[in-house]
Amino acid sequence: MQLKMDKPALEAFLVEAFPQVCDDFAIEEVAPMALKVRLVVTDKHLRPGGTVSGPSMFALADVAVYLATLAMIGPQGLAVTTNISMDFMRKPAAATDLICDTRLLKLGRSLSVGECLLYSVGQEAPVARASMTYAIPPARAAHQP
Amino acid sequence: MQLKMDKPALEAFLVEAFPQVCDDFAIEEVAPMALKVRLVVTDKHLRPGGTVSGPSMFALADVAVYLATLAMIGPQGLAVTTNISMDFMRKPAAATDLICDTRLLKLGRSLSVGECLLYSVGQEAPVARASMTYAIPPARAAHQP
Amino acid sequence: MQLKMDKPALEAFLVEAFPQVCDDFAIEEVAPMALKVRLVVTDKHLRPGGTVSGPSMFALADVAVYLATLAMIGPQGLAVTTNISMDFMRKPAAATDLICDTRLLKLGRSLSVGECLLYSVGQEAPVARASMTYAIPPARAAHQP
Amino acid sequence: MQLKMDKPALEAFLVEAFPQVCDDFAIEEVAPMALKVRLVVTDKHLRPGGTVSGPSMFALADVAVYLATLAMIGPQGLAVTTNISMDFMRKPAAATDLICDTRLLKLGRSLSVGECLLYSVGQEAPVARASMTYAIPPARAAHQP
Repeated sequence: MQLKMDKPALEAFLVEAFPQVCDDFAIEEVAPMALKVRLVVTDKHLRPGGTVSGPSMFALADVAVYLATLAMIGPQGLAVTTNISMDFMRKPAAATDLICDTRLLKLGRSLSVGECLLYSVGQEAPVARASMTYAIPPARAAHQP
Repeated sequence: MQLKMDKPALEAFLVEAFPQVCDDFAIEEVAPMALKVRLVVTDKHLRPGGTVSGPSMFALADVAVYLATLAMIGPQGLAVTTNISMDFMRKPAAATDLICDTRLLKLGRSLSVGECLLYSVGQEAPVARASMTYAIPPARAAHQP
Repeated sequence: MQLKMDKPALEAFLVEAFPQVCDDFAIEEVAPMALKVRLVVTDKHLRPGGTVSGPSMFALADVAVYLATLAMIGPQGLAVTTNISMDFMRKPAAATDLICDTRLLKLGRSLSVGECLLYSVGQEAPVARASMTYAIPPARAAHQP
Repeated sequence: MQLKMDKPALEAFLVEAFPQVCDDFAIEEVAPMALKVRLVVTDKHLRPGGTVSGPSMFALADVAVYLATLAMIGPQGLAVTTNISMDFMRKPAAATDLICDTRLLKLGRSLSVGECLLYSVGQEAPVARASMTYAIPPARAAHQP
Protein backbone atom coordinates (compact mmCIF):
# COMPACT_ATOMS: atom_id res chain seq x y z
CA MET A 1 0.00 0.00 0.00
CA GLN A 2 1.28 3.40 -0.96
CA LEU A 3 0.72 6.86 0.45
CA LYS A 4 -1.40 9.22 -1.62
CA MET A 5 -0.51 12.15 0.65
CA ASP A 6 2.80 12.62 2.42
CA LYS A 7 3.54 14.78 5.46
CA PRO A 8 3.72 18.14 3.62
CA ALA A 9 0.53 17.36 1.69
CA LEU A 10 -1.34 16.48 4.89
CA GLU A 11 -0.03 19.61 6.61
CA ALA A 12 -1.22 21.77 3.73
CA PHE A 13 -4.61 20.07 3.78
CA LEU A 14 -4.97 20.65 7.52
CA VAL A 15 -4.25 24.35 7.15
CA GLU A 16 -6.69 24.74 4.29
CA ALA A 17 -9.53 22.59 5.59
CA PHE A 18 -9.34 23.32 9.33
CA PRO A 19 -7.87 26.81 9.74
CA GLN A 20 -9.41 27.17 13.21
CA VAL A 21 -7.62 24.20 14.75
CA CYS A 22 -4.63 23.46 12.52
CA ASP A 23 -2.20 25.08 14.97
CA ASP A 24 -3.26 22.61 17.66
CA PHE A 25 -1.81 19.66 15.78
CA ALA A 26 1.64 18.79 14.49
CA ILE A 27 2.05 15.75 12.25
CA GLU A 28 5.09 13.83 13.48
CA GLU A 29 5.26 10.76 11.23
CA VAL A 30 3.34 9.38 8.27
CA ALA A 31 3.61 5.84 6.98
CA PRO A 32 1.29 3.50 5.08
CA MET A 33 -1.67 2.76 7.40
CA ALA A 34 0.04 4.54 10.33
CA LEU A 35 0.53 8.08 11.59
CA LYS A 36 1.67 10.03 14.65
CA VAL A 37 0.22 13.42 15.54
CA ARG A 38 1.09 15.73 18.43
CA LEU A 39 -1.41 17.85 20.31
CA VAL A 40 0.41 21.11 20.97
CA VAL A 41 -1.08 21.74 24.38
CA THR A 42 -2.03 25.30 25.29
CA ASP A 43 -4.29 26.78 27.95
CA LYS A 44 -7.45 26.11 25.98
CA HIS A 45 -6.82 22.34 26.17
CA LEU A 46 -6.48 22.25 29.94
CA ARG A 47 -8.86 21.57 32.78
CA PRO A 48 -8.36 23.29 36.14
CA GLY A 49 -5.36 21.57 37.69
CA GLY A 50 -3.52 21.48 34.38
CA THR A 51 -4.67 18.16 32.96
CA VAL A 52 -5.57 17.87 29.28
CA SER A 53 -9.36 17.80 28.82
CA GLY A 54 -11.34 14.88 27.44
CA PRO A 55 -12.64 16.84 24.43
CA SER A 56 -9.03 17.73 23.53
CA MET A 57 -8.06 14.04 23.59
CA PHE A 58 -11.11 13.24 21.49
CA ALA A 59 -10.13 15.93 18.97
CA LEU A 60 -6.61 14.52 18.77
CA ALA A 61 -7.74 10.95 18.09
CA ASP A 62 -10.35 12.19 15.62
CA VAL A 63 -7.87 14.18 13.54
CA ALA A 64 -5.30 11.38 13.71
CA VAL A 65 -7.57 8.73 12.18
CA TYR A 66 -8.85 11.25 9.67
CA LEU A 67 -5.34 12.14 8.50
CA ALA A 68 -4.24 8.49 8.49
CA THR A 69 -7.19 7.76 6.20
CA LEU A 70 -6.53 10.71 3.90
CA ALA A 71 -2.88 9.72 3.64
CA MET A 72 -4.09 6.52 1.98
CA ILE A 73 -7.04 7.72 -0.11
CA GLY A 74 -6.12 11.32 -0.91
CA PRO A 75 -7.86 14.56 0.10
CA GLN A 76 -11.48 13.81 1.01
CA GLY A 77 -13.01 16.67 2.89
CA LEU A 78 -16.26 14.77 3.16
CA ALA A 79 -15.12 11.75 5.14
CA VAL A 80 -17.03 11.80 8.43
CA THR A 81 -16.61 10.10 11.80
CA THR A 82 -19.43 7.65 12.41
CA ASN A 83 -18.31 5.96 15.64
CA ILE A 84 -15.77 6.43 18.39
CA SER A 85 -14.97 4.46 21.50
CA MET A 86 -12.44 5.78 24.01
CA ASP A 87 -11.04 4.55 27.30
CA PHE A 88 -9.44 7.14 29.57
CA MET A 89 -6.93 5.21 31.61
CA ARG A 90 -4.53 7.63 33.29
CA LYS A 91 -4.40 11.32 34.06
CA PRO A 92 -2.29 13.11 31.42
CA ALA A 93 0.82 14.90 32.69
CA ALA A 94 0.14 18.56 33.51
CA ALA A 95 0.54 21.01 30.64
CA THR A 96 2.39 18.47 28.48
CA ASP A 97 1.91 17.73 24.79
CA LEU A 98 0.17 14.49 23.85
CA ILE A 99 1.26 12.11 21.11
CA CYS A 100 -1.35 10.02 19.31
CA ASP A 101 0.00 6.84 17.79
CA THR A 102 -2.48 5.67 15.15
CA ARG A 103 -2.86 2.63 12.99
CA LEU A 104 -5.47 1.87 10.37
CA LEU A 105 -6.88 -1.62 10.84
CA LYS A 106 -9.17 -1.48 7.84
CA LEU A 107 -9.39 0.66 4.76
CA GLY A 108 -12.43 -0.42 2.81
CA ARG A 109 -14.35 1.25 0.01
CA SER A 110 -16.84 2.85 2.37
CA LEU A 111 -15.39 2.56 5.90
CA SER A 112 -11.99 3.00 7.50
CA VAL A 113 -11.28 1.79 11.03
CA GLY A 114 -8.36 3.05 13.09
CA GLU A 115 -7.08 2.66 16.59
CA CYS A 116 -5.02 5.07 18.66
CA LEU A 117 -2.93 5.13 21.79
CA LEU A 118 -2.44 8.54 23.38
CA TYR A 119 0.65 9.31 25.46
CA SER A 120 1.86 12.31 27.45
CA VAL A 121 5.25 13.15 25.98
CA GLY A 122 7.94 11.47 28.05
CA GLN A 123 5.67 8.87 29.65
CA GLU A 124 5.55 5.20 28.74
CA ALA A 125 2.05 4.22 29.80
CA PRO A 126 -0.76 5.41 27.52
CA VAL A 127 -3.25 7.91 28.97
CA ALA A 128 -6.05 6.82 26.65
CA ARG A 129 -6.99 4.54 23.80
CA ALA A 130 -9.47 5.19 21.00
CA SER A 131 -11.00 3.31 18.11
CA MET A 132 -12.81 5.18 15.38
CA THR A 133 -14.75 4.52 12.20
CA TYR A 134 -14.82 6.96 9.32
CA ALA A 135 -17.36 6.76 6.52
CA ILE A 136 -15.78 7.48 3.15
CA PRO A 137 -18.17 9.06 0.65
CA PRO A 138 -18.82 6.94 -2.48
CA ALA A 139 -17.50 9.51 -4.93
CA ARG A 140 -13.98 9.84 -3.53
CA ALA A 141 -14.11 13.00 -5.56
CA ALA A 142 -11.83 16.00 -5.34
CA HIS A 143 -11.09 17.88 -2.15
CA GLN A 144 -14.12 19.59 -0.60
CA PRO A 145 -13.40 20.75 2.93
CA MET B 1 -34.10 8.68 44.55
CA GLN B 2 -33.65 12.30 45.42
CA LEU B 3 -31.56 15.08 43.95
CA LYS B 4 -28.59 16.23 46.03
CA MET B 5 -28.03 19.20 43.71
CA ASP B 6 -30.77 21.12 41.91
CA LYS B 7 -30.43 23.34 38.85
CA PRO B 8 -29.04 26.43 40.63
CA ALA B 9 -26.56 24.29 42.60
CA LEU B 10 -25.32 22.61 39.41
CA GLU B 11 -25.04 25.97 37.66
CA ALA B 12 -22.97 27.38 40.50
CA PHE B 13 -20.74 24.29 40.49
CA LEU B 14 -20.18 24.58 36.74
CA VAL B 15 -19.10 28.22 37.06
CA GLU B 16 -16.74 27.48 39.93
CA ALA B 17 -15.22 24.23 38.66
CA PHE B 18 -15.08 24.90 34.91
CA PRO B 19 -14.75 28.68 34.44
CA GLN B 20 -13.24 28.22 30.96
CA VAL B 21 -16.21 26.40 29.47
CA CYS B 22 -19.18 27.17 31.69
CA ASP B 23 -20.60 29.70 29.24
CA ASP B 24 -20.80 27.00 26.57
CA PHE B 25 -23.44 25.07 28.47
CA ALA B 26 -26.91 25.92 29.77
CA ILE B 27 -28.67 23.45 32.04
CA GLU B 28 -32.25 23.12 30.83
CA GLU B 29 -33.82 20.52 33.12
CA VAL B 30 -32.76 18.44 36.11
CA ALA B 31 -34.64 15.43 37.44
CA PRO B 32 -33.64 12.30 39.37
CA MET B 33 -31.36 10.27 37.07
CA ALA B 34 -32.06 12.60 34.12
CA LEU B 35 -30.87 15.94 32.81
CA LYS B 36 -31.00 18.16 29.72
CA VAL B 37 -28.13 20.49 28.79
CA ARG B 38 -27.84 22.90 25.87
CA LEU B 39 -24.65 23.60 23.98
CA VAL B 40 -24.74 27.31 23.28
CA VAL B 41 -23.14 27.13 19.87
CA THR B 42 -20.67 29.84 18.91
CA ASP B 43 -17.99 30.08 16.23
CA LYS B 44 -15.49 28.04 18.22
CA HIS B 45 -17.79 24.99 18.07
CA LEU B 46 -18.14 25.02 14.30
CA ARG B 47 -16.36 23.28 11.47
CA PRO B 48 -16.00 24.98 8.09
CA GLY B 49 -19.47 24.84 6.57
CA GLY B 50 -21.12 25.66 9.87
CA THR B 51 -21.66 22.20 11.34
CA VAL B 52 -20.97 21.57 15.04
CA SER B 53 -17.65 19.75 15.50
CA GLY B 54 -17.25 16.26 16.93
CA PRO B 55 -15.18 17.43 19.91
CA SER B 56 -17.95 19.91 20.79
CA MET B 57 -20.51 17.10 20.77
CA PHE B 58 -18.19 15.00 22.90
CA ALA B 59 -17.79 17.87 25.37
CA LEU B 60 -21.56 18.26 25.59
CA ALA B 61 -22.21 14.57 26.31
CA ASP B 62 -19.33 14.50 28.78
CA VAL B 63 -20.59 17.44 30.82
CA ALA B 64 -24.16 16.14 30.68
CA VAL B 65 -23.40 12.75 32.24
CA TYR B 66 -21.08 14.44 34.74
CA LEU B 67 -23.77 16.87 35.87
CA ALA B 68 -26.44 14.13 35.94
CA THR B 69 -24.15 12.14 38.23
CA LEU B 70 -23.37 15.10 40.50
CA ALA B 71 -27.06 15.91 40.75
CA MET B 72 -27.46 12.52 42.45
CA ILE B 73 -24.29 12.27 44.56
CA GLY B 74 -23.43 15.91 45.30
CA PRO B 75 -20.39 17.96 44.25
CA GLN B 76 -17.54 15.60 43.39
CA GLY B 77 -14.86 17.39 41.44
CA LEU B 78 -12.86 14.20 41.21
CA ALA B 79 -15.27 12.02 39.26
CA VAL B 80 -13.56 11.14 35.97
CA THR B 81 -14.74 9.79 32.64
CA THR B 82 -13.36 6.29 32.07
CA ASN B 83 -15.15 5.30 28.86
CA ILE B 84 -17.20 6.84 26.10
CA SER B 85 -18.83 5.42 23.02
CA MET B 86 -20.46 7.72 20.48
CA ASP B 87 -22.28 7.25 17.19
CA PHE B 88 -22.51 10.26 14.89
CA MET B 89 -25.64 9.69 12.86
CA ARG B 90 -26.64 12.92 11.15
CA LYS B 91 -25.07 16.25 10.34
CA PRO B 92 -26.10 18.85 12.93
CA ALA B 93 -28.03 21.86 11.63
CA ALA B 94 -25.73 24.77 10.77
CA ALA B 95 -24.94 27.17 13.61
CA THR B 96 -27.76 25.82 15.79
CA ASP B 97 -27.66 24.97 19.50
CA LEU B 98 -27.62 21.30 20.47
CA ILE B 99 -29.66 19.73 23.24
CA CYS B 100 -28.31 16.69 25.08
CA ASP B 101 -30.98 14.53 26.64
CA THR B 102 -29.31 12.37 29.29
CA ARG B 103 -30.39 9.52 31.47
CA LEU B 104 -28.41 7.68 34.13
CA LEU B 105 -28.80 3.92 33.70
CA LYS B 106 -26.68 3.02 36.71
CA LEU B 107 -25.49 4.86 39.78
CA GLY B 108 -23.28 2.51 41.74
CA ARG B 109 -20.80 3.16 44.52
CA SER B 110 -17.86 3.39 42.16
CA LEU B 111 -19.30 3.76 38.64
CA SER B 112 -22.10 5.70 37.01
CA VAL B 113 -23.30 4.91 33.50
CA GLY B 114 -25.30 7.34 31.41
CA GLU B 115 -26.64 7.55 27.91
CA CYS B 116 -27.36 10.61 25.81
CA LEU B 117 -29.19 11.59 22.67
CA LEU B 118 -28.05 14.84 21.04
CA TYR B 119 -30.44 16.92 18.95
CA SER B 120 -30.13 20.10 16.90
CA VAL B 121 -32.76 22.44 18.36
CA GLY B 122 -35.93 22.16 16.30
CA GLN B 123 -35.11 18.78 14.74
CA GLU B 124 -36.70 15.51 15.69
CA ALA B 125 -34.04 12.99 14.65
CA PRO B 126 -30.98 12.77 16.93
CA VAL B 127 -27.64 13.83 15.45
CA ALA B 128 -25.64 11.59 17.79
CA ARG B 129 -25.85 9.16 20.67
CA ALA B 130 -23.36 8.63 23.47
CA SER B 131 -22.85 6.30 26.40
CA MET B 132 -20.39 7.16 29.12
CA THR B 133 -18.97 5.71 32.30
CA TYR B 134 -17.78 7.87 35.16
CA ALA B 135 -15.60 6.56 37.96
CA ILE B 136 -16.65 7.98 41.31
CA PRO B 137 -13.78 8.28 43.80
CA PRO B 138 -14.17 6.14 46.93
CA ALA B 139 -14.05 9.05 49.35
CA ARG B 140 -16.95 11.02 47.89
CA ALA B 141 -15.21 13.79 49.79
CA ALA B 142 -15.82 17.50 49.54
CA HIS B 143 -15.70 19.45 46.29
CA GLN B 144 -12.27 19.56 44.67
CA PRO B 145 -12.43 20.78 41.09
CA MET C 1 -42.31 4.74 8.21
CA GLN C 2 -43.90 1.42 7.57
CA LEU C 3 -42.92 -2.13 8.42
CA LYS C 4 -41.75 -4.30 5.53
CA MET C 5 -41.78 -7.41 7.74
CA ASP C 6 -44.22 -8.05 10.55
CA LYS C 7 -43.82 -10.45 13.48
CA PRO C 8 -44.74 -13.66 11.59
CA ALA C 9 -42.46 -12.68 8.68
CA LEU C 10 -39.54 -12.03 11.02
CA GLU C 11 -40.18 -15.30 12.86
CA ALA C 12 -40.16 -17.22 9.58
CA PHE C 13 -36.94 -15.48 8.52
CA LEU C 14 -35.26 -16.34 11.82
CA VAL C 15 -36.12 -20.01 11.46
CA GLU C 16 -34.91 -20.15 7.88
CA ALA C 17 -31.74 -18.06 8.21
CA PHE C 18 -30.57 -19.08 11.69
CA PRO C 19 -31.84 -22.61 12.35
CA GLN C 20 -29.14 -23.20 14.98
CA VAL C 21 -30.19 -20.40 17.29
CA CYS C 22 -33.77 -19.53 16.37
CA ASP C 23 -35.16 -21.37 19.39
CA ASP C 24 -33.16 -19.11 21.69
CA PHE C 25 -35.15 -16.04 20.71
CA ALA C 26 -38.82 -15.12 20.84
CA ILE C 27 -39.98 -11.93 19.15
CA GLU C 28 -42.32 -10.15 21.55
CA GLU C 29 -43.27 -6.93 19.77
CA VAL C 30 -42.54 -5.30 16.42
CA ALA C 31 -43.20 -1.65 15.60
CA PRO C 32 -41.69 0.85 13.17
CA MET C 33 -38.10 1.45 14.29
CA ALA C 34 -38.63 -0.59 17.49
CA LEU C 35 -38.67 -4.21 18.57
CA LYS C 36 -38.66 -6.41 21.68
CA VAL C 37 -37.04 -9.83 21.71
CA ARG C 38 -36.80 -12.38 24.53
CA LEU C 39 -33.83 -14.59 25.19
CA VAL C 40 -35.34 -17.92 26.22
CA VAL C 41 -32.69 -18.79 28.78
CA THR C 42 -31.53 -22.40 29.02
CA ASP C 43 -28.48 -24.05 30.52
CA LYS C 44 -26.25 -23.18 27.60
CA HIS C 45 -26.71 -19.44 28.29
CA LEU C 46 -25.64 -19.66 31.93
CA ARG C 47 -22.38 -19.15 33.75
CA PRO C 48 -21.63 -21.13 36.90
CA GLY C 49 -23.84 -19.56 39.57
CA GLY C 50 -26.76 -19.27 37.18
CA THR C 51 -26.17 -15.84 35.69
CA VAL C 52 -26.67 -15.26 31.97
CA SER C 53 -23.31 -15.09 30.16
CA GLY C 54 -21.93 -12.04 28.37
CA PRO C 55 -21.86 -13.74 24.96
CA SER C 56 -25.55 -14.61 25.38
CA MET C 57 -26.37 -10.96 26.08
CA PHE C 58 -24.30 -9.94 23.07
CA ALA C 59 -26.17 -12.45 20.89
CA LEU C 60 -29.50 -11.09 22.10
CA ALA C 61 -28.63 -7.45 21.32
CA ASP C 62 -27.15 -8.46 17.99
CA VAL C 63 -30.24 -10.33 16.83
CA ALA C 64 -32.52 -7.59 18.14
CA VAL C 65 -30.94 -4.78 16.10
CA TYR C 66 -30.71 -7.09 13.10
CA LEU C 67 -34.41 -7.94 13.24
CA ALA C 68 -35.38 -4.31 13.91
CA THR C 69 -33.46 -3.36 10.77
CA LEU C 70 -34.97 -6.14 8.65
CA ALA C 71 -38.44 -5.18 9.83
CA MET C 72 -37.88 -1.84 8.08
CA ILE C 73 -35.93 -2.85 4.97
CA GLY C 74 -37.12 -6.39 4.30
CA PRO C 75 -35.20 -9.68 4.35
CA GLN C 76 -31.48 -8.94 3.90
CA GLY C 77 -29.41 -11.91 4.88
CA LEU C 78 -26.24 -9.99 4.08
CA ALA C 79 -26.54 -7.14 6.56
CA VAL C 80 -23.56 -7.44 8.92
CA THR C 81 -22.69 -6.00 12.31
CA THR C 82 -19.80 -3.57 12.03
CA ASN C 83 -19.64 -2.16 15.56
CA ILE C 84 -21.01 -2.86 19.01
CA SER C 85 -20.57 -1.15 22.33
CA MET C 86 -22.03 -2.69 25.49
CA ASP C 87 -22.10 -1.75 29.16
CA PHE C 88 -22.81 -4.52 31.63
CA MET C 89 -24.37 -2.79 34.62
CA ARG C 90 -26.01 -5.37 36.85
CA LYS C 91 -25.92 -9.10 37.33
CA PRO C 92 -28.87 -10.71 35.53
CA ALA C 93 -31.32 -12.64 37.70
CA ALA C 94 -30.45 -16.34 37.94
CA ALA C 95 -31.90 -18.57 35.24
CA THR C 96 -34.39 -15.90 34.11
CA ASP C 97 -35.28 -14.88 30.55
CA LEU C 98 -33.95 -11.54 29.32
CA ILE C 99 -35.93 -8.97 27.34
CA CYS C 100 -34.13 -6.73 24.89
CA ASP C 101 -35.91 -3.45 24.21
CA THR C 102 -34.54 -2.05 20.95
CA ARG C 103 -34.94 1.16 19.05
CA LEU C 104 -33.45 2.15 15.71
CA LEU C 105 -31.93 5.63 15.90
CA LYS C 106 -30.89 5.75 12.27
CA LEU C 107 -31.86 3.86 9.17
CA GLY C 108 -29.70 5.12 6.33
CA ARG C 109 -28.98 3.71 2.91
CA SER C 110 -25.82 1.96 4.05
CA LEU C 111 -25.88 1.95 7.87
CA SER C 112 -28.46 1.33 10.58
CA VAL C 113 -27.81 2.26 14.20
CA GLY C 114 -29.77 0.82 17.08
CA GLU C 115 -29.69 0.92 20.83
CA CYS C 116 -30.88 -1.67 23.31
CA LEU C 117 -31.67 -2.01 26.98
CA LEU C 118 -31.61 -5.55 28.36
CA TYR C 119 -33.73 -6.53 31.36
CA SER C 120 -34.17 -9.66 33.42
CA VAL C 121 -37.88 -10.44 33.24
CA GLY C 122 -39.59 -8.95 36.28
CA GLN C 123 -36.86 -6.45 37.11
CA GLU C 124 -37.03 -2.74 36.51
CA ALA C 125 -33.36 -1.78 36.29
CA PRO C 126 -31.59 -2.76 33.05
CA VAL C 127 -28.80 -5.34 33.29
CA ALA C 128 -27.01 -4.03 30.21
CA ARG C 129 -27.15 -1.51 27.39
CA ALA C 130 -25.89 -1.92 23.85
CA SER C 131 -25.50 0.19 20.74
CA MET C 132 -24.85 -1.43 17.40
CA THR C 133 -24.20 -0.49 13.80
CA TYR C 134 -25.23 -2.70 10.92
CA ALA C 135 -23.88 -2.26 7.40
CA ILE C 136 -26.60 -2.75 4.81
CA PRO C 137 -25.31 -4.08 1.49
CA PRO C 138 -25.81 -1.72 -1.46
CA ALA C 139 -27.92 -4.11 -3.48
CA ARG C 140 -30.67 -4.64 -0.93
CA ALA C 141 -31.23 -7.69 -3.07
CA ALA C 142 -33.34 -10.71 -2.27
CA HIS C 143 -32.90 -12.82 0.84
CA GLN C 144 -29.57 -14.63 1.04
CA PRO C 145 -28.92 -16.05 4.52
CA MET D 1 5.59 -6.85 36.36
CA GLN D 2 5.45 -10.53 37.06
CA LEU D 3 2.93 -13.21 36.26
CA LYS D 4 0.90 -14.55 39.19
CA MET D 5 -0.50 -17.36 37.01
CA ASP D 6 1.34 -19.11 34.21
CA LYS D 7 -0.13 -21.07 31.31
CA PRO D 8 -0.82 -24.32 33.25
CA ALA D 9 -2.36 -22.38 36.15
CA LEU D 10 -4.66 -20.46 33.77
CA GLU D 11 -5.62 -23.67 31.99
CA ALA D 12 -6.51 -25.33 35.28
CA PHE D 13 -8.54 -22.27 36.31
CA LEU D 14 -10.45 -22.29 33.03
CA VAL D 15 -11.39 -25.96 33.45
CA GLU D 16 -12.52 -25.47 37.01
CA ALA D 17 -14.34 -22.16 36.65
CA PHE D 18 -15.87 -22.55 33.18
CA PRO D 19 -16.39 -26.27 32.58
CA GLN D 20 -19.08 -25.57 29.95
CA VAL D 21 -16.84 -23.60 27.61
CA CYS D 22 -13.25 -24.49 28.51
CA ASP D 23 -12.90 -26.81 25.51
CA ASP D 24 -13.64 -23.91 23.18
CA PHE D 25 -10.45 -22.10 24.13
CA ALA D 26 -6.75 -23.00 23.98
CA ILE D 27 -4.25 -20.69 25.64
CA GLU D 28 -1.35 -20.22 23.21
CA GLU D 29 0.98 -17.78 24.97
CA VAL D 30 1.11 -15.97 28.30
CA ALA D 31 3.39 -13.03 29.07
CA PRO D 32 3.21 -10.08 31.47
CA MET D 33 0.28 -7.90 30.33
CA ALA D 34 -0.17 -9.98 27.15
CA LEU D 35 -1.81 -13.22 26.11
CA LYS D 36 -2.87 -15.19 23.05
CA VAL D 37 -5.90 -17.48 23.04
CA ARG D 38 -7.28 -19.66 20.27
CA LEU D 39 -10.95 -20.25 19.62
CA VAL D 40 -11.18 -23.91 18.66
CA VAL D 41 -13.92 -23.49 16.09
CA THR D 42 -16.61 -26.15 15.90
CA ASP D 43 -20.08 -26.22 14.39
CA LYS D 44 -21.64 -24.38 17.31
CA HIS D 45 -19.52 -21.29 16.54
CA LEU D 46 -20.59 -21.02 12.92
CA ARG D 47 -23.26 -19.10 11.09
CA PRO D 48 -24.84 -20.54 7.96
CA GLY D 49 -22.17 -20.22 5.28
CA GLY D 50 -19.43 -21.26 7.67
CA THR D 51 -18.35 -17.91 9.11
CA VAL D 52 -17.62 -17.61 12.82
CA SER D 53 -20.51 -15.88 14.62
CA GLY D 54 -20.31 -12.52 16.36
CA PRO D 55 -21.16 -13.94 19.80
CA SER D 56 -18.29 -16.44 19.39
CA MET D 57 -15.87 -13.60 18.66
CA PHE D 58 -17.22 -11.70 21.64
CA ALA D 59 -16.73 -14.76 23.86
CA LEU D 60 -13.14 -15.11 22.65
CA ALA D 61 -12.22 -11.48 23.37
CA ASP D 62 -13.99 -11.64 26.72
CA VAL D 63 -12.13 -14.72 27.93
CA ALA D 64 -8.82 -13.36 26.58
CA VAL D 65 -8.93 -10.11 28.57
CA TYR D 66 -10.19 -12.01 31.61
CA LEU D 67 -7.30 -14.48 31.48
CA ALA D 68 -4.75 -11.73 30.77
CA THR D 69 -6.02 -9.96 33.90
CA LEU D 70 -5.96 -13.09 36.06
CA ALA D 71 -2.44 -13.86 34.88
CA MET D 72 -1.39 -10.62 36.58
CA ILE D 73 -3.57 -10.58 39.70
CA GLY D 74 -4.16 -14.26 40.43
CA PRO D 75 -7.40 -16.26 40.40
CA GLN D 76 -10.35 -13.87 40.84
CA GLY D 77 -13.58 -15.57 39.91
CA LEU D 78 -15.46 -12.37 40.66
CA ALA D 79 -13.90 -10.04 38.13
CA VAL D 80 -16.68 -8.94 35.77
CA THR D 81 -16.80 -7.31 32.34
CA THR D 82 -18.23 -3.82 32.58
CA ASN D 83 -17.72 -2.55 29.04
CA ILE D 84 -16.85 -3.84 25.60
CA SER D 85 -16.44 -2.16 22.26
CA MET D 86 -15.89 -4.24 19.13
CA ASP D 87 -15.40 -3.49 15.45
CA PHE D 88 -16.07 -6.30 13.01
CA MET D 89 -13.90 -5.54 10.01
CA ARG D 90 -13.64 -8.61 7.81
CA LYS D 91 -15.47 -11.88 7.38
CA PRO D 92 -13.59 -14.65 9.21
CA ALA D 93 -12.32 -17.52 7.07
CA ALA D 94 -14.81 -20.39 6.88
CA ALA D 95 -14.53 -23.01 9.62
CA THR D 96 -11.10 -21.79 10.72
CA ASP D 97 -9.81 -21.24 14.26
CA LEU D 98 -9.45 -17.67 15.46
CA ILE D 99 -6.49 -16.29 17.39
CA CYS D 100 -7.04 -13.42 19.83
CA ASP D 101 -3.94 -11.34 20.46
CA THR D 102 -4.49 -9.43 23.70
CA ARG D 103 -2.64 -6.74 25.56
CA LEU D 104 -3.50 -5.13 28.88
CA LEU D 105 -3.23 -1.36 28.64
CA LYS D 106 -4.09 -0.71 32.27
CA LEU D 107 -4.10 -2.80 35.41
CA GLY D 108 -5.39 -0.64 38.22
CA ARG D 109 -6.70 -1.54 41.65
CA SER D 110 -10.31 -1.62 40.52
CA LEU D 111 -10.26 -1.70 36.69
CA SER D 112 -8.28 -3.47 34.02
CA VAL D 113 -8.43 -2.40 30.38
CA GLY D 114 -7.36 -4.64 27.52
CA GLU D 115 -7.42 -4.55 23.77
CA CYS D 116 -7.55 -7.42 21.32
CA LEU D 117 -7.02 -8.13 17.67
CA LEU D 118 -8.73 -11.25 16.32
CA TYR D 119 -7.32 -13.14 13.34
CA SER D 120 -8.39 -16.16 11.31
CA VAL D 121 -5.46 -18.56 11.52
CA GLY D 122 -3.27 -18.07 8.47
CA GLN D 123 -4.54 -14.61 7.59
CA GLU D 124 -2.66 -11.38 8.14
CA ALA D 125 -5.47 -8.83 8.34
CA PRO D 126 -7.47 -8.84 11.58
CA VAL D 127 -11.14 -9.83 11.38
CA ALA D 128 -12.11 -7.81 14.45
CA ARG D 129 -10.82 -5.61 17.22
CA ALA D 130 -12.10 -5.34 20.78
CA SER D 131 -11.47 -3.24 23.85
CA MET D 132 -12.78 -4.34 27.21
CA THR D 133 -12.91 -3.15 30.79
CA TYR D 134 -13.01 -5.56 33.71
CA ALA D 135 -13.99 -4.48 37.22
CA ILE D 136 -11.82 -6.14 39.82
CA PRO D 137 -13.57 -6.68 43.16
CA PRO D 138 -12.01 -4.78 46.08
CA ALA D 139 -11.19 -7.86 48.13
CA ARG D 140 -9.03 -9.65 45.58
CA ALA D 141 -9.90 -12.61 47.76
CA ALA D 142 -9.44 -16.27 46.97
CA HIS D 143 -10.83 -17.99 43.91
CA GLN D 144 -14.62 -18.00 43.72
CA PRO D 145 -15.82 -18.97 40.27
